[in-house]
Amino acid sequence: CFFYSEKRLTSSERLRCIAKASAGRLEGKLREKTLTLDTLNPQVKAVEYAVRGPIVIKAGEIERYLEEGGTKPFSEVIKANIGDAHAMGQQPITFLRQVVALCTFPELMDSPSFPEDAKWRARRILQGCGGHSLGSYSASPGVECIRKDIAAYIEQRDEGVPSDWENIYLTTGASDGIMTILRLLVSGKDSSRTGVMIPIPQYPLYSAAISEMDAVQVNYYLDEDNCWALDINELYRAYQAAKLHCQPRVICIINPGNPTGQVQSKKCIEEVLHFAYEENLFVMSDEVYQDNVYTPDCQFHSFKKVLYEMGPEYFNSVELASFHSTSKGYTGECGFRGGYMEVINMDPEVKAQMVKLLSVRLCPPLAGQAAMDVIVNPPQPDEHSYKQFRQEKSSVLGALADKAKLTEQILNAVPGIKCNPVQGAMYAFPRIFIPPKAVEEAKALGMQPDMFYCLRLLEETGICVVPGSGFGQKDGTYHFRMTILPSIEKLKVLLGKVRDFHIRFLKEYSALE
Amino acid sequence: CFFYSEKRLTSSERLRCIAKASAGRLEGKLREKTLTLDTLNPQVKAVEYAVRGPIVIKAGEIERYLEEGGTKPFSEVIKANIGDAHAMGQQPITFLRQVVALCTFPELMDSPSFPEDAKWRARRILQGCGGHSLGSYSASPGVECIRKDIAAYIEQRDEGVPSDWENIYLTTGASDGIMTILRLLVSGKDSSRTGVMIPIPQYPLYSAAISEMDAVQVNYYLDEDNCWALDINELYRAYQAAKLHCQPRVICIINPGNPTGQVQSKKCIEEVLHFAYEENLFVMSDEVYQDNVYTPDCQFHSFKKVLYEMGPEYFNSVELASFHSTSKGYTGECGFRGGYMEVINMDPEVKAQMVKLLSVRLCPPLAGQAAMDVIVNPPQPDEHSYKQFRQEKSSVLGALADKAKLTEQILNAVPGIKCNPVQGAMYAFPRIFIPPKAVEEAKALGMQPDMFYCLRLLEETGICVVPGSGFGQKDGTYHFRMTILPSIEKLKVLLGKVRDFHIRFLKEYSALE
Repeated sequence: CFFYSEKRLTSSERLRCIAKASAGRLEGKLREKTLTLDTLNPQVKAVEYAVRGPIVIKAGEIERYLEEGGTKPFSEVIKANIGDAHAMGQQPITFLRQVVALCTFPELMDSPSFPEDAKWRARRILQGCGGHSLGSYSASPGVECIRKDIAAYIEQRDEGVPSDWENIYLTTGASDGIMTILRLLVSGKDSSRTGVMIPIPQYPLYSAAISEMDAVQVNYYLDEDNCWALDINELYRAYQAAKLHCQPRVICIINPGNPTGQVQSKKCIEEVLHFAYEENLFVMSDEVYQDNVYTPDCQFHSFKKVLYEMGPEYFNSVELASFHSTSKGYTGECGFRGGYMEVINMDPEVKAQMVKLLSVRLCPPLAGQAAMDVIVNPPQPDEHSYKQFRQEKSSVLGALADKAKLTEQILNAVPGIKCNPVQGAMYAFPRIFIPPKAVEEAKALGMQPDMFYCLRLLEETGICVVPGSGFGQKDGTYHFRMTILPSIEKLKVLLGKVRDFHIRFLKEYSALE
Repeated sequence: CFFYSEKRLTSSERLRCIAKASAGRLEGKLREKTLTLDTLNPQVKAVEYAVRGPIVIKAGEIERYLEEGGTKPFSEVIKANIGDAHAMGQQPITFLRQVVALCTFPELMDSPSFPEDAKWRARRILQGCGGHSLGSYSASPGVECIRKDIAAYIEQRDEGVPSDWENIYLTTGASDGIMTILRLLVSGKDSSRTGVMIPIPQYPLYSAAISEMDAVQVNYYLDEDNCWALDINELYRAYQAAKLHCQPRVICIINPGNPTGQVQSKKCIEEVLHFAYEENLFVMSDEVYQDNVYTPDCQFHSFKKVLYEMGPEYFNSVELASFHSTSKGYTGECGFRGGYMEVINMDPEVKAQMVKLLSVRLCPPLAGQAAMDVIVNPPQPDEHSYKQFRQEKSSVLGALADKAKLTEQILNAVPGIKCNPVQGAMYAFPRIFIPPKAVEEAKALGMQPDMFYCLRLLEETGICVVPGSGFGQKDGTYHFRMTILPSIEKLKVLLGKVRDFHIRFLKEYSALE
C-alpha cells in the first residue's frame, strides 16, 4: 500500500502523464478493455457450477423460445435441475410465513387473523433486533435469541448433547457458511497447499469453492455398488495419495447425500470421525437434508452427536463445523437465504478472526434469520398453530417419501438405468448406460457423454436434469441428477418421458453399432 | 485433484496407516488443532474492519456490564459507529414494508388494510418468482421484473441515459457486489499483482476486500482542506507511484463519500472518468448514498450519466460498475441485505464468467430484492400511498439534513476539532487535535492515538465512534467517524458529551506538557 507523500504533481507534471498515456492512442492503437477473459482472475475462470451450468442456460433459451410462440415436441420445460421446492409448486409452511410477515410489518400484531403463537415468536425476534426492526443490521454472527433457539434445538435433536449458543453462526444460506470455513482453512503454496477432501459425487459448491480459493481438491469416491456408502478404506487411500502433493486439512461430508441420497450409518460416521481425529483434519459436515430421510430403515445421525458418543477425547478435540439451511427440509425456503453453522472446538483466536471476517459482510439477511428461528422453534403440541403446522409438515415430507420411492422404482424398470434407493435428500442420481457409439459422437463434439445425453433429453422432452460429470463420477460411468420435487403427477410424466427417451436413445445408438 | 484409482486399500493396509498416525500420540504427543492462528489463511489475518472492530467489541462489553447492573459515569452506550438507521430509531417506510409483507404472506392480498398500489407491486414481484413464491431461488442476477424496474429507475434518474436491464445484477447488499467485481479483477503475482485505487479516508470494506484477495491497495488522498474533494493531480501521483510496484487496474470512488460526506462535482467526476479512460482502469462507483445529499449547493451526479455526457468514445468504452443498496437512502433497510449493481462495457465473455460465479451462491435474498424494487418503483403522485410515502421520505431526509448541519456546527465550535460540512451520506469525520503527550501515551500502549482517544471517549461517556485510523488518514492527522443517525435530541446530548470530553482531554494532556 502506497502511503501519502507530501509531494503532489504539478499541473504540468500531470499533463506529461496524460500525454504519455494518450501517446498510444495517438498512434492509432484502440483502447483495450481492462477486464477480458485473458486478464480475468484465473481462479474465477476455473470455477464450474453445473447446477446452473450450460444445460440450464440452454433450458432457459428453450423456455423463452416456447414463450415467443416457437414449437418443440413438448409444451413446457420441466426444471428438475435444482432443489427449488417452491418453484416446483410446494406450498410454504403457513406458520413460518406468518412469523416473517409479522416481523416485516409489525402493524399486523393487531390483526386478529394472525395467531398468538406466531405473534409471540415475532415479538421475541424483534426484541432481539436493533430498534426492534428487521431493517437493522444484526450482530455479525446473528440475532442472539435466534442463536439461543438454534442451540436449544440442537440439544433436543441430539438428545441432550450440549450446544453452546456462542458456537452458532447464522449464515446467508448454507453455501455462505461453507465458503467462510473454507476461507479460513485454505492457504499455502505448492506442496503445502491446503487439500480439501470431498466426496465424489459431490455438490458442486465444494469444487467451485476449491477452485475459487485455489485449494487442492482431494476426491474420495462413494461406493455406488453399496448404495453410495462412504468406505473408510477409500478415505485412507485418498488421503495417502493426496499427502504426496498437498496438505490435506479438511474433510467435507454431505449427509444425507447430495446428489446421491444416501443416509450414513452411525458406524460410518464414527469411522470418519476417528479418521479425522487421527489425521488431524477439520470436519465440515453438510447436514442441510437432516429432515429429509425417507426410508424407514435409515435414520439421520448428526456428526456432533456421534462425536459426543465417542467420548470426551474426541468430543473435546475434533474441530467440527456443521451446516443447516432454511432452503431444504420441509420448508424449502431457498429465497430467504437462511442458514446456520455450529462450530465446535475451534481455537478461540481463530474464532475471533472468523467473526472479524463475517463482520466485513455485516450480517446475514434478517428475514432468513427469522425463518431459521421458526424452523428450530416450531409450534408445540399445546399451541394453536400446531395442528396445521404438523399437517403441512407431514404432507410435504410424506409426498417426498412417495416421490423418492416412485422415482427409484420407475427408473430401475428402464433397461440401461440403475438407480440406488433415494434414502434421503431430494435427488435421484441414476447411473445410465450410454452406448459406445453415443460416447464417440459426444467426444467428437468435444462434449462429456452425459452432457450429450442430457442435452438430447432436454431438446427432445423439455426435461432439464444435470449431467453426472458436473458432480464427479468414476471414470467411464455416467449419471444424471434429477430432483424428486415435481408434483407426483408431473413426476410420473417426467419419468415416463425419461424412460421413453432412454429406450429411443439406446435403440438409436445400438442400431448404429 | 486426485482421480479415482481402482486400487483400494485392504484392511491391513489401512491399519498400517492408522498405526502410523497414532504413533505420535502413543509417544505422548498431544493432538494439535488443525486450525490455529499460525495455520489460518494469512489473508484472513490481514483483514481489518474498524466499523465492527475492537472499539465496537469493547462497547458491547460495556453494554452487557451495564445490563448486569454494573455502573459507569453514563447509563447507556450510544453506538454511533455504524450506519444502522433503524437501530437508531428511524422508522421504516410503511409502503416498503407493506409490499414485502404481502410478498411474504400472500394471504394478505385479501386484507382491506393493505392498499391496492402495494398489492399490485407485490403481485408483480411474485409473478416474477418461481411458483409465485418468495421462497424460490431467483435467477442468479435477480428477478427479471425487478431488474427491469431498476433499469427504468436509472434511466429516469439520469434523465434519459439508456440503461439495459441485462446489465443490472441484484446483490446481497452493496458489499457483496463490490466483492464480486473485485474478485473478477484481482489476479497476478509480484509486480503484476492487481492494484486497486481507493480514496483515503475510505470505507474499510475496500481495504478488507483487498487484504482478503491479496491485491495491492493504492491510496489516493482526498483533500481535507478542500472539503474532502478528489484532486485529480493526486490521482495521477498515486497511479504513477503504484505503477512501479503493481498493475493498477481499478479505481474505486465513493460518492457521496463515506466517511467523509463530500458530494463530488460534475467536473471532478469528469476528470476521474477521463483519467480512467486514459489509464485503462475499471471504474467502481459506490453510490449507495445517492439519495443522501443535504446541502442545497450540492447535487448527486451519477458516474454513468457523466460518462454518457462525455460522448460515445467514453460511454462505449469505459468499464464501469456502480452500486446501490436498500441499507442507506431514506429507507435504511440494512437487515434486508438488498442492493444492485449496474455494469456497463463489461466484456461479454467476462460477464458470462461473472454470472457463473454469482450462480455458485445461488441468488440474493428475495426479500431484499423486493425491498430494492420498492425503492426504485415508489408510489407515484396518482397512487393512494403517495402522500404518506412522500411525507415519510421527506421527514427522514429532512431530519438527516438538520442533523448533518447540527453536527458540523457543534463540532466546529469545539477548540481542537475541525469538521468539514456533511454534504451527504450519514457521517461526520471531524479532525481532532490530540496533544503530543496523549500521542506519546497511546504509543507507549502500542495503540493508535485516535484509538486511544476513542477508547477514552467510550469509557468516559458511553459514546462509540470509530477511530480515523480504521478508514485511513494523512500521517499525523487524527479523526473519528460518527454517524448522524441518532434522533436530534440524542444527537445534541451526544455532541455535548463529545465537546465536554474533548475539552477535558485537551486540558488533561496539555497540563502535563
